[in-house]
Amino acid sequence: MLAVVKAQAGPGFELRNVPIPTIGPHDVLIKTRACSICGTDLHIYNWDVWSQNRIKPPLIVGHEFSGEIVDIGRDVNGLSVGAFVSAESHIVCNMCDECRTGNAHVCRNTRIIGVDQDGCFAEYVAIPAQNVWVNPADMPCDIASLQENFGNAVHTALATPLVARDILVTGCGPAGLMTIAVARASGAHRIFASDLSDYRLDLARKLGAHATINVSQQNLVQYVREATHGEGVDVLLEMAGAPSSIRDGLAALKHAGTAVLLGLPRAPFELDLGNLVVMSGITVLGIAGRRLWQTWYQMRGLLSGGAVDLSPVITHHFKLTEYEKAFQVMASGQSGKVILTPDF
Amino acid sequence: MLAVVKAQAGPGFELRNVPIPTIGPHDVLIKTRACSICGTDLHIYNWDVWSQNRIKPPLIVGHEFSGEIVDIGRDVNGLSVGAFVSAESHIVCNMCDECRTGNAHVCRNTRIIGVDQDGCFAEYVAIPAQNVWVNPADMPCDIASLQENFGNAVHTALATPLVARDILVTGCGPAGLMTIAVARASGAHRIFASDLSDYRLDLARKLGAHATINVSQQNLVQYVREATHGEGVDVLLEMAGAPSSIRDGLAALKHAGTAVLLGLPRAPFELDLGNLVVMSGITVLGIAGRRLWQTWYQMRGLLSGGAVDLSPVITHHFKLTEYEKAFQVMASGQSGKVILTPDF
Amino acid sequence: MLAVVKAQAGPGFELRNVPIPTIGPHDVLIKTRACSICGTDLHIYNWDVWSQNRIKPPLIVGHEFSGEIVDIGRDVNGLSVGAFVSAESHIVCNMCDECRTGNAHVCRNTRIIGVDQDGCFAEYVAIPAQNVWVNPADMPCDIASLQENFGNAVHTALATPLVARDILVTGCGPAGLMTIAVARASGAHRIFASDLSDYRLDLARKLGAHATINVSQQNLVQYVREATHGEGVDVLLEMAGAPSSIRDGLAALKHAGTAVLLGLPRAPFELDLGNLVVMSGITVLGIAGRRLWQTWYQMRGLLSGGAVDLSPVITHHFKLTEYEKAFQVMASGQSGKVILTPDF
Amino acid sequence: MLAVVKAQAGPGFELRNVPIPTIGPHDVLIKTRACSICGTDLHIYNWDVWSQNRIKPPLIVGHEFSGEIVDIGRDVNGLSVGAFVSAESHIVCNMCDECRTGNAHVCRNTRIIGVDQDGCFAEYVAIPAQNVWVNPADMPCDIASLQENFGNAVHTALATPLVARDILVTGCGPAGLMTIAVARASGAHRIFASDLSDYRLDLARKLGAHATINVSQQNLVQYVREATHGEGVDVLLEMAGAPSSIRDGLAALKHAGTAVLLGLPRAPFELDLGNLVVMSGITVLGIAGRRLWQTWYQMRGLLSGGAVDLSPVITHHFKLTEYEKAFQVMASGQSGKVILTPDF
Repeated sequence: MLAVVKAQAGPGFELRNVPIPTIGPHDVLIKTRACSICGTDLHIYNWDVWSQNRIKPPLIVGHEFSGEIVDIGRDVNGLSVGAFVSAESHIVCNMCDECRTGNAHVCRNTRIIGVDQDGCFAEYVAIPAQNVWVNPADMPCDIASLQENFGNAVHTALATPLVARDILVTGCGPAGLMTIAVARASGAHRIFASDLSDYRLDLARKLGAHATINVSQQNLVQYVREATHGEGVDVLLEMAGAPSSIRDGLAALKHAGTAVLLGLPRAPFELDLGNLVVMSGITVLGIAGRRLWQTWYQMRGLLSGGAVDLSPVITHHFKLTEYEKAFQVMASGQSGKVILTPDF
Repeated sequence: MLAVVKAQAGPGFELRNVPIPTIGPHDVLIKTRACSICGTDLHIYNWDVWSQNRIKPPLIVGHEFSGEIVDIGRDVNGLSVGAFVSAESHIVCNMCDECRTGNAHVCRNTRIIGVDQDGCFAEYVAIPAQNVWVNPADMPCDIASLQENFGNAVHTALATPLVARDILVTGCGPAGLMTIAVARASGAHRIFASDLSDYRLDLARKLGAHATINVSQQNLVQYVREATHGEGVDVLLEMAGAPSSIRDGLAALKHAGTAVLLGLPRAPFELDLGNLVVMSGITVLGIAGRRLWQTWYQMRGLLSGGAVDLSPVITHHFKLTEYEKAFQVMASGQSGKVILTPDF
Repeated sequence: MLAVVKAQAGPGFELRNVPIPTIGPHDVLIKTRACSICGTDLHIYNWDVWSQNRIKPPLIVGHEFSGEIVDIGRDVNGLSVGAFVSAESHIVCNMCDECRTGNAHVCRNTRIIGVDQDGCFAEYVAIPAQNVWVNPADMPCDIASLQENFGNAVHTALATPLVARDILVTGCGPAGLMTIAVARASGAHRIFASDLSDYRLDLARKLGAHATINVSQQNLVQYVREATHGEGVDVLLEMAGAPSSIRDGLAALKHAGTAVLLGLPRAPFELDLGNLVVMSGITVLGIAGRRLWQTWYQMRGLLSGGAVDLSPVITHHFKLTEYEKAFQVMASGQSGKVILTPDF
Repeated sequence: MLAVVKAQAGPGFELRNVPIPTIGPHDVLIKTRACSICGTDLHIYNWDVWSQNRIKPPLIVGHEFSGEIVDIGRDVNGLSVGAFVSAESHIVCNMCDECRTGNAHVCRNTRIIGVDQDGCFAEYVAIPAQNVWVNPADMPCDIASLQENFGNAVHTALATPLVARDILVTGCGPAGLMTIAVARASGAHRIFASDLSDYRLDLARKLGAHATINVSQQNLVQYVREATHGEGVDVLLEMAGAPSSIRDGLAALKHAGTAVLLGLPRAPFELDLGNLVVMSGITVLGIAGRRLWQTWYQMRGLLSGGAVDLSPVITHHFKLTEYEKAFQVMASGQSGKVILTPDF
């Protein structure tokens, strides 16, 4: 089969012809229908410091996809060939304290599809049966692929009640955009969204933001305070991971408010924790992955009833063989979510 | 001034000419613009057992209203003549354990406007300044009056997260209808609504119910189970208070679900607590009044951003002098919320 | 091997010689070291209505035990022969919504050891590996056996914070006694305990109750109100399941308090839900089983640090062959927990 | 009366003879019986940057005390001359969003006794009636004075459940020591305590720490990880405010754990928020002041039942006129809590 492969240490990928993966007794084999590109894939493409420490080439990359089960391991129960499925990308150990107390999303022994073992940017992918999520048969393939990343947005947005409250979403990349959609569906009073890119802020308004702030042109904290009678927002949903975004987001928060952090700062940075967190009595929630499987149930609830429509997030489609173009679009910042279709 | 008065022990009210109330140092005097009728007012009209034990005639009735501040007591701060306001009807003591630990909504010494002291079905009403809520100047008078009762709905609906979840609302009187509106605004996956009246179930659909069940014709538990793949709903919002409604509502709930009870059963009744609550591991939340003042802030968030539109709940308007007609409509069951306008 | 068997429909058990159980690929075989008798075992002995509907003889009874792993199925990971273990008695399906969202303790497809399949009152017992809990090697066998039931107490007591609060424990059977021990270890301000038996109330004081009320001689609600300046307790831990116990327990609760219900009423009964739950704004938590595996981790935390000492709960030891005597003691009400030792 | 006064901008205090304060209609006058010194008082004594920006001399300093009501303003209800009382030091506005939604402890308009208006290191102090807490008549004066600071410890320790969990307390100054006592009373499994001072670590063990780590000699993170089978603690209670303490405390925390921060870092500092908070999925709770009045009720519950004994925290007593000696002891680090007795 054709696959997009991190062939060796260094930037870039290769399109290779590789064997269809074999499956173990607890695995399933899935024929992919749609894949989507995550920021993590771009980091691996660029071979940044994190990738250099984590990735062992050669590796088939990609972890967001939907597809059809075509084979099932000997000991797998409850799944059948032909089912239309998506996948949780975190393979957890089921044995550690975290896994056994409802916190498998931060399992200490997590292995990630497309990072620690072969991924989905290929015609077929093999994954453990325990990572399979069965979709409604009529869900569009590209929306189904988005769920892995949508789950980050849902985990973030539903970590604290948003209904009737003022919300600030910092960072309008794909996860930020989907978070805005969830916040709007959740009955937020006003949603403020910030980013450096007008292209993304346009998308933010389409997905439900009431007001957008381009932080290259406007003072975020001042804008939010003025718009909230000096009080600040009730909830910060931090999706960017930039130090300035975290600092300003916390400064725009009401006393006793809640900051939910998904954006990942790539290095330590200076923070006025005393004033921004301690004295203001706020709650900070670190968010990783998706709650197993609450977040997936919540996604189903939001998507199947029509409360959230993710289609505006998808801005580009490419064939898998056009992956180079797709990664260029991703790198440009002029995109929402980019879909790869493996119809060779 | 003219006022609707419970003149003596027994059914009915009288329209009387009475003095404008005087105010104490911590009170304000309000000229009413709109009043709304609550089920409690109907109980007092009918002189039911509860009323006989609680009401001491003569009494000006009514506790839902909006109006304009026309006079202010000597020791009142932060309020001014001309402000357009509504009122929290529960006058709490500020001294008991409940009041001092964030639970003033269940203050043991609560006195209620229009129940324990003169109320608002009159040209003027005097209330403690601590019970005043200042409205946006452009809020319609009748919507502003509804807030006291809307607060019951908001307190109930926001007692547990509804986003992405399946909800059952039992009882589609005014509070039930407003609860449906809040549940819909909160991103509920599916809202099932039940009642005995097709008139009210029509209103329920207008306010956002996805499916309605007339329990005089359909088996509620069976309907809900079939519609939820045998699982039941995540949350019950019980607004009727009828024993059958509570029993069926609990039976339609998923294991580990949440039942929020506002509807007030008027007498003890038989309940299978072992199976419906203990073995199924559910959470039951008793709801009384409105959280001070969180619920009012939540109302503001829902109404001012447009997430909830209460206008379909209001089905009738009368002049205060037509109060007899208004109470007949209320008693008929063929109404949503009934507004009285005191423009003599 | 020797086993205590429900041989046929009707009261009583038989001691039989039966084959050592065989194990499947996901099971382990355990040589029992200590067993303990649960109220449920007594119901099965007596062949009450619940038993008649649930139990299919012949069946080896018993579900509380500790022992040593002596054989391991082909597909079992992470366990080894020789390990000293206890067991979670609820075999859950891992597939239903409840299991997949952190609520496996109320799995709709639960099967129970000693109820729905052969149990532990025998020399050996076979159970699924997923039900095994590994104990510290130095934990006494009888304490280790108690954990299944102790887990009910821990699940109940830790369902809401008890520190610095006034607590009422209604029902001082073994689960009630262990709940008192947990409440005391948790820093409760005052623990009131009620029962009909002075024998059990003596044990209650040994386990940490500050005050005991024999409800055959004293008015529980009046006692508690007087002892709490009229306010009532913050938390009710209801362990008896008797209608009077539930009614009085709720009536002794502070407004906005929390009632945690483990005691199982055997039939529907009349309850003043309006006054006791709705108007008082309380929270009711139905408790079943043990949270998987949070409750077991909590037990480990309480037992291994010495915060809770369960030894006073154990009042009698018998050999397994003396099971008739043991059940007579259990039936007498003059016992705490009764241990059976299978040393044939 | 005699009073300890910040007479002018610059280090040090003066003992002065000043008029007894007059009271307004909502105030009470209290004759002090015991005062205690807080770290904040030392900052004001030393005239650090924070003090220079906040304090307007001349000012009577001190905010922790107990005493007897000797006069009552015209509009004060529910208090009487002769009552033995302590005081909440934060004078809140009752008007802001925070005050009106249960978060008065982070009121935006807080004024502090002894900081923003005359304090208690004097024979008499005048405070608003709303800041008075009535003590049991038999509570020792010095324990009663400690409550203001004990409330910080209680607010911190009870912000998340501690029962059966492993806890790390970083910083064993007075607030840290009292936090240890609360954690021990709450049934924590193991309490690890860290500090730079062996004097304070000795006190930590007296108050209930199971293990102490002198961070000038041992690696805190390594110690805690080894002692918890590599998992880390469930809860961090951070009382020091030093950057190293916060960093190491977070690093010693289990995934999905909870960090409660009371210690106040005096300046921004570098933090690896990505790994320590986001990826590990932890919850961070900023703590300021005391919850009004929940924390005070919790203190009463802990102290009146004997669950917590604060007497080991008090290491020194001085007369108010000996304030210079008292501040030298405080500055030495060789003290717990220092009491001043105003018996002139």
